[in-house]
Amino acid sequence: MYLVPSPPLDAEQERAVDVFRRADRFLLAGHVRPDGDCIGAQAALARVLLALGKEVTIVNPDPAEEQFDYLTRECSYRVFDGGALPAHDVACLLDISELERCGNLAEPLRSARSTKVVIDHHVFQGERWWDAAFLDVGASATGLLVYRVARALGVALDPVAAQGVFTSLVTDTGWFRYSNTDAETLAVASELVAGGVDPSRLFKAIFQRNDPRQPRAIAELLGRLEYSVDGRLAVVDWPLCNGTESALHDGDLVLDILRSVGPVEVVVFLRETEDGACKLSARSKGNYDVQALASEFGGGGHVRASGATIKGPLAEVRARVVAAAVARFDGATNGLVKPDRRRGRR
Amino acid sequence: MYLVPSPPLDAEQERAVDVFRRADRFLLAGHVRPDGDCIGAQAALARVLLALGKEVTIVNPDPAEEQFDYLTRECSYRVFDGGALPAHDVACLLDISELERCGNLAEPLRSARSTKVVIDHHVFQGERWWDAAFLDVGASATGLLVYRVARALGVALDPVAAQGVFTSLVTDTGWFRYSNTDAETLAVASELVAGGVDPSRLFKAIFQRNDPRQPRAIAELLGRLEYSVDGRLAVVDWPLCNGTESALHDGDLVLDILRSVGPVEVVVFLRETEDGACKLSARSKGNYDVQALASEFGGGGHVRASGATIKGPLAEVRARVVAAAVARFDGATNGLVKPDRRRGRR
Repeated sequence: MYLVPSPPLDAEQERAVDVFRRADRFLLAGHVRPDGDCIGAQAALARVLLALGKEVTIVNPDPAEEQFDYLTRECSYRVFDGGALPAHDVACLLDISELERCGNLAEPLRSARSTKVVIDHHVFQGERWWDAAFLDVGASATGLLVYRVARALGVALDPVAAQGVFTSLVTDTGWFRYSNTDAETLAVASELVAGGVDPSRLFKAIFQRNDPRQPRAIAELLGRLEYSVDGRLAVVDWPLCNGTESALHDGDLVLDILRSVGPVEVVVFLRETEDGACKLSARSKGNYDVQALASEFGGGGHVRASGATIKGPLAEVRARVVAAAVARFDGATNGLVKPDRRRGRR
Repeated sequence: MYLVPSPPLDAEQERAVDVFRRADRFLLAGHVRPDGDCIGAQAALARVLLALGKEVTIVNPDPAEEQFDYLTRECSYRVFDGGALPAHDVACLLDISELERCGNLAEPLRSARSTKVVIDHHVFQGERWWDAAFLDVGASATGLLVYRVARALGVALDPVAAQGVFTSLVTDTGWFRYSNTDAETLAVASELVAGGVDPSRLFKAIFQRNDPRQPRAIAELLGRLEYSVDGRLAVVDWPLCNGTESALHDGDLVLDILRSVGPVEVVVFLRETEDGACKLSARSKGNYDVQALASEFGGGGHVRASGATIKGPLAEVRARVVAAAVARFDGATNGLVKPDRRRGRR
């Protein structure tokens, strides 16, 4: 059986591994609203470093979602409360290269005298501010990079670390459905399953614990669906009066349903929040760049998945976002804005 | 990187491979309403045999779903019309061990003088009627068995064969989410992706071509949701008056949504058909055996996914199925039937 091995390390990655090998006290930090890749990569790296006899603390600006409790139960995740950082020699950022996206951790980390390391797979535009980095924008997940670090350190993943890496892989690849699902990702997943990770158990833990009100909330949301641009754009929104977020916790399921429609290329989902703003989630099935759309409204993300927080009441925000989304279709003929306004907006 | 190789062949499997090696004219047959595993395995085996210079015809009792047209375009799939079978030396059943489940092909195959081979991963209870067989009830998909056959024959998979095996793997494992997702399955998937298979393109082809009416149909269906047994049983139904099947083509999405609810252990979905019957789809998240439930109504399947066709109007069928489903919960306290009736039914 031919299988793709992980790529050899470059000199910068070797230096980062060396920091992990030599230092003693580690602080692992993540980004605001840490996702499955961030939490999974932290769990995996924490266990690898503990196996080497290091001291490790995980500190994030926000708590992990409950769906990852099988990891947070096993490692000591702390939410930074603004006090002093735990004593540490090395601060390692996972799944983020911009200190600014570490919320209330950013300033204390900046002024700490520790060695700074970054492990990340996101594109980074600014000036390199860290001491060492393990970067690969071609990697499907940060957890995959932690897997490579563990191999370079010669540490076998224990069951928690293996679940951490698997969590990273599945949450950042849409459970092996997105275009970042490559041979290495599946080969590592295979190795993790061979070592005892149970995919169906983790799927249940991560994605099958929704509130019983969820199906009716999805029904209500889908009832508000409107298509435009010949059915290529699907728009749904969730007004504040429809209830709290908990009833519609899992917006991803709705995005999945709308993307399953053949002609749909782009999905726009707007959710009104209590502080007079709207949260935009935009998804693309093909070449349409929703990152560019979100950046028009101060947000960001990836080409096929992006988001933004936009001030204003839902009706007004919706009109602006839909107009901008329509304008970005090549040769769009039946949008919600007139051609002249569209040209003006671009 | 440690990776699980496919297991060595047993003597029976070796004999089946020998039949593929020696014979010249092959007829590949599938079961009624061939699914992704059946169609994918047929495409893969057809291309492997063609690479060895054999003659191959694929014949099924029913046409393949349009979602698999990227395979059916590349291989000559025929729907059996009741005439004479194509001339062949070997008839190979894929994804089915029971000749009876081959619809109108069953009788002509039985009376044909060809050598009969079966490649399958389903449990088979009856007497072995074939000349040779490549069986493994532990395999996640029949396509995985075709992969092993190709390896034993020393044939590299061409792009169509690779897509065929990948299609089998993803359709029978719920895209690597079900409990049959093992290390070999993921290792083979990795190899296929390394060889050029594009997971996101295949996901789009198989699961993202739904009718634009689909989201509203899902909304309507979810609006009819009822829980019972403390929310452990979720029941939805689709009366005939709600419109044709095409508007609700992809019932799997609804089953996914209902299974995503934390307390839900079993989902029952009933759809009224035009011939005065109802189609039952039952899904289980855990140990509840929906195969046993379906078999009460003349159906079958697997422990976690089963179906049946039940004569009668929806309201009556629904009451019977829900009563039977409730009765199968251990210690169910708030069902729709009284304890004495429940005991009597078991």
